[in-house]
Amino acid sequence: MTIYVVNPNSSQHVTDGISRAVDPMRSSSPVPIEARTLTEGPPGIESQAHVDGVVLPLLAHCAALESQASAFVVACYSDPGLAALREQSSRPVLGIAEASILTAMSLGQQFGIISILSKSVPRHMRYIGAMGVKDRLAADLPLELGVLELADETRTFERLKAVGTRLRDEAMANVVILGCAGMTNFRTDLEAYLGIPVVEPCQAATAMAIGRVALQKTR
Amino acid sequence: MTIYVVNPNSSQHVTDGISRAVDPMRSSSPVPIEARTLTEGPPGIESQAHVDGVVLPLLAHCAALESQASAFVVACYSDPGLAALREQSSRPVLGIAEASILTAMSLGQQFGIISILSKSVPRHMRYIGAMGVKDRLAADLPLELGVLELADETRTFERLKAVGTRLRDEAMANVVILGCAGMTNFRTDLEAYLGIPVVEPCQAATAMAIGRVALQKTR
Amino acid sequence: MTIYVVNPNSSQHVTDGISRAVDPMRSSSPVPIEARTLTEGPPGIESQAHVDGVVLPLLAHCAALESQASAFVVACYSDPGLAALREQSSRPVLGIAEASILTAMSLGQQFGIISILSKSVPRHMRYIGAMGVKDRLAADLPLELGVLELADETRTFERLKAVGTRLRDEAMANVVILGCAGMTNFRTDLEAYLGIPVVEPCQAATAMAIGRVALQKTR
Amino acid sequence: MTIYVVNPNSSQHVTDGISRAVDPMRSSSPVPIEARTLTEGPPGIESQAHVDGVVLPLLAHCAALESQASAFVVACYSDPGLAALREQSSRPVLGIAEASILTAMSLGQQFGIISILSKSVPRHMRYIGAMGVKDRLAADLPLELGVLELADETRTFERLKAVGTRLRDEAMANVVILGCAGMTNFRTDLEAYLGIPVVEPCQAATAMAIGRVALQKTR
Amino acid sequence: MTIYVVNPNSSQHVTDGISRAVDPMRSSSPVPIEARTLTEGPPGIESQAHVDGVVLPLLAHCAALESQASAFVVACYSDPGLAALREQSSRPVLGIAEASILTAMSLGQQFGIISILSKSVPRHMRYIGAMGVKDRLAADLPLELGVLELADETRTFERLKAVGTRLRDEAMANVVILGCAGMTNFRTDLEAYLGIPVVEPCQAATAMAIGRVALQKTR
Amino acid sequence: MTIYVVNPNSSQHVTDGISRAVDPMRSSSPVPIEARTLTEGPPGIESQAHVDGVVLPLLAHCAALESQASAFVVACYSDPGLAALREQSSRPVLGIAEASILTAMSLGQQFGIISILSKSVPRHMRYIGAMGVKDRLAADLPLELGVLELADETRTFERLKAVGTRLRDEAMANVVILGCAGMTNFRTDLEAYLGIPVVEPCQAATAMAIGRVALQKTR
Repeated sequence: MTIYVVNPNSSQHVTDGISRAVDPMRSSSPVPIEARTLTEGPPGIESQAHVDGVVLPLLAHCAALESQASAFVVACYSDPGLAALREQSSRPVLGIAEASILTAMSLGQQFGIISILSKSVPRHMRYIGAMGVKDRLAADLPLELGVLELADETRTFERLKAVGTRLRDEAMANVVILGCAGMTNFRTDLEAYLGIPVVEPCQAATAMAIGRVALQKTR
Repeated sequence: MTIYVVNPNSSQHVTDGISRAVDPMRSSSPVPIEARTLTEGPPGIESQAHVDGVVLPLLAHCAALESQASAFVVACYSDPGLAALREQSSRPVLGIAEASILTAMSLGQQFGIISILSKSVPRHMRYIGAMGVKDRLAADLPLELGVLELADETRTFERLKAVGTRLRDEAMANVVILGCAGMTNFRTDLEAYLGIPVVEPCQAATAMAIGRVALQKTR
Repeated sequence: MTIYVVNPNSSQHVTDGISRAVDPMRSSSPVPIEARTLTEGPPGIESQAHVDGVVLPLLAHCAALESQASAFVVACYSDPGLAALREQSSRPVLGIAEASILTAMSLGQQFGIISILSKSVPRHMRYIGAMGVKDRLAADLPLELGVLELADETRTFERLKAVGTRLRDEAMANVVILGCAGMTNFRTDLEAYLGIPVVEPCQAATAMAIGRVALQKTR
Repeated sequence: MTIYVVNPNSSQHVTDGISRAVDPMRSSSPVPIEARTLTEGPPGIESQAHVDGVVLPLLAHCAALESQASAFVVACYSDPGLAALREQSSRPVLGIAEASILTAMSLGQQFGIISILSKSVPRHMRYIGAMGVKDRLAADLPLELGVLELADETRTFERLKAVGTRLRDEAMANVVILGCAGMTNFRTDLEAYLGIPVVEPCQAATAMAIGRVALQKTR
Repeated sequence: MTIYVVNPNSSQHVTDGISRAVDPMRSSSPVPIEARTLTEGPPGIESQAHVDGVVLPLLAHCAALESQASAFVVACYSDPGLAALREQSSRPVLGIAEASILTAMSLGQQFGIISILSKSVPRHMRYIGAMGVKDRLAADLPLELGVLELADETRTFERLKAVGTRLRDEAMANVVILGCAGMTNFRTDLEAYLGIPVVEPCQAATAMAIGRVALQKTR
Repeated sequence: MTIYVVNPNSSQHVTDGISRAVDPMRSSSPVPIEARTLTEGPPGIESQAHVDGVVLPLLAHCAALESQASAFVVACYSDPGLAALREQSSRPVLGIAEASILTAMSLGQQFGIISILSKSVPRHMRYIGAMGVKDRLAADLPLELGVLELADETRTFERLKAVGTRLRDEAMANVVILGCAGMTNFRTDLEAYLGIPVVEPCQAATAMAIGRVALQKTR
């Protein structure tokens, strides 16, 4: 049995980053954790059509894994297919956006989100509304860097520091969430810089999945 | 130029019902109104996978109509693909769930929704949360009748009366929305029975589309 | 039958501006659209006493038009008398504040409002609270220009650009509403400048009224 | 200097009931408390037009009293003219609806409201929304008795007990507000019957006015 | 290193019940799980004074365990001392109320809570307000059984079934939370009876703690 | 009989400041107002452990005063023990945070809070959430001055002006609350500087207590 962390975009280097991000948790997990790439997905999920379009292949991908799955993690910050996968699967199903927010809610009173692009923000806001947790949001602010542009790590970290500082000092956030699966490398340094907890969503969701695997034993 | 009302399920009789429902508005519309069937869709949209699964064919269907379209109406109460179609199209795009709620908000202070099945309710609640209008919702209560079962009109109307009465008298709804594109036939009778406005969502969205076609003239 | 757009202040030039603003929609309307001045109103509606004070004359004005009315639009951004007129009239009744907000809610996830004066803001906030849509508001920021001062179009447009930019970039608004009936001239230019939808409320409400006239045919 | 409690309807017996209701507080007030009748008002305030229509005469009435006023209380559960009177007067101004809710918020976590008629409820809901306290409302339920019908005290008390019990046991209210200035007689008995605090709004607002008169001494 | 689940009341049988409830999870946890009794606590926590009164001894109890602690779970449904313990400890700290709600939020759209007594409900409502998740609450309804009375298991289960059914069918809850640490025995049977997920809060919080222990490895 | 204003920290000079602040109200109160020091409290209440730790001594302190008490005011901006004291006492019980917010809600539509330290803000946010009034909050911003540092009155007032200006002009607050019992001296000057109402919470709560003493006469 395995916890499957499914990256719904087709970029193997993103999957590799996710796998590295959850690596320190493997020794604490009762089951293996496997990061997988949805090869049918687009290279990056940047539009609502991308989000909606990966759902059917994601469902098929997970259906094939159902019998060996301890739990599923959907590893894209738009949580594509989360509700549908929950209807399909009998296993615990977590999405990195939802899980990062639920985690942040126990680490600070007001959470901030760092988005890659301003056009991601309305999508997040709909989701936060659907989750019913708007009152806990400090602000959601963009880096204004596309997925590919994140690769320039010096520039990316400069932007992360600037936006994180704005969230902490102007919007009064007590905890910050990295609002994209492609920023795993920066969590530790940003947390050290800001002095408040920084949540990397793939880690947060996988941690929650580990707990759910344990919880299933009580069923 | 035409207002396209796209039924994302493949049931022609549902499309026919929608067309009849909007028929009285045709003489007041500056452009023709055409109800269309998404033949790639399932016979009825009853699960989240159905909702997500129709998005790509719906986008393709509408892309082909873009140049002749005055506006698009997505005619399923889960508003599948609404956000994605808005990103794709330069025309006004309306969804029957959103439009029915926005319409109801100007007809009464608290709106009630009549769902077909209790399993539809959580999906609606996520959507109402995303719209940020939970405080205006009186309640969302189910008929517990599947799409096919709606065909027994006597039983359906009995249930509509019972659920509508509960919404009005217990949940204090001032206006009631029919939460499915397949109940067009019952609006007038239910409104007469309840004595408060009853909103049929295909009509509400098409009316709003007619307004938007006019509004586009100011751009 | 006619759609009556009633300006509840007594300034004919405001009424004229409204009439020009809705002019492009006339050819798409199934009925004539007539902008009217409430001669009993004050020159401008700037205080709560002004808002409350115009209700009785407005009701009388509209009662006299009831038999020829297809719909009524109350054309002041405080929507004076909206609830009372709905109790009095059997016609569709729309207010420009409510209608502009409902319209903006389908054009962007978070809406910003540009008020003329900071003292207008608390009145708007009460109204947005009554509408139950506070979670969709990005911010409501003032120009700090009185009604008369709007006439200096160069200065007004400079302020509109500055406040609109703040709404878009700091408050993360996806759509902006002109929060006064006297800014009709600036919609197109401001939208071009900001690159996000700008809603002129008299146009939005009249468009919605055109839809409602069509919708009434189904009753 | 005097605290003026202004009944905006023209029924002297309602004013007399208010005066009796606040009578026990007179000995604890630093200034006299005078209940007054707005003779220009309608016999009862039952519609939105009534609410809006009394504002101008109420403002005039209070302007004439300004120099002798320690504070004003608007004694109708729709708080007509409250915002306008606050703009006009330099004295503390309280409305019985607002004050009863603020008082109830410190007496129990969820408050229930007993309205006279179901058509009052939407008006209250708009107001509670404007106050931003919807999350504290358990429910607002009607007696379905008009103002005149309240005079049958036996029937009225039976209805009060039934509605109050529903608020306490079904809607889980911890405190109940009498949602009309004409139910002063029933507070004590209903509180004894229900076993949870019952707030009479004229008393609550006048108590708060007494506090504000003291508070003004610090200015 | 150990996950400490601290029962802040002094009843060893409650602690024993908690230990049994989490027993199936022990084999999936990377560290031992130890349920402890706060001997300074009252036999049961039924009033706000009880809640506030256990904080200082709880802090002292946990301070003495800090160096061996992987994580702390506060095992009382009022989450006494949660915020203070988070300020004191550098370990993950979870409360069973908060954790059960965060867990339920990923198992269903609207959650219901079963309280022991109606006087618990206002305390829960303040907490749900502080968590900012009121919009996700279906209802919180009491068994009206004191802690000692829960020992009559037949009667308790009858009440659980009745209240759970009301939450599911009237309040439209999609998931139910047992709102007391003393109902561990009933989770499985109640879930089977209701057909929707039932969350036992000590299990939910301990599961989340297991995940957090893993997550700490990434720090 | 006496209104007891209990300062739950042990600093007599804070108690003295409170006594001076309420002094002008004494002549308007039907009973004496006595400010008391909880000698068992810490010198200042700056952490959640401080808040929780003073509850039991506060309850004992007030129990001893119960028979002579007209009302109790808890004079710390975290309202420690407020809910517990309400369960214990049969007298009106007010907290300065709650009362200042309820007062501010009738003085302006959006209230701002000036905190001493940014670490106070999350505690306030939980409380505002529990009160259900988040929608009325403009912002809560810190001076970043500890309790002792407030003694430098020149620097403190400079900060108060800066933060108050930000609340008024950026967050659009219409009324400002001093979020600490130790800023009594600055209310008048800050109100004059800002031009909008400034609420000192000990004064606001004591004023409300005076009203409640009067209201008790109706019971």
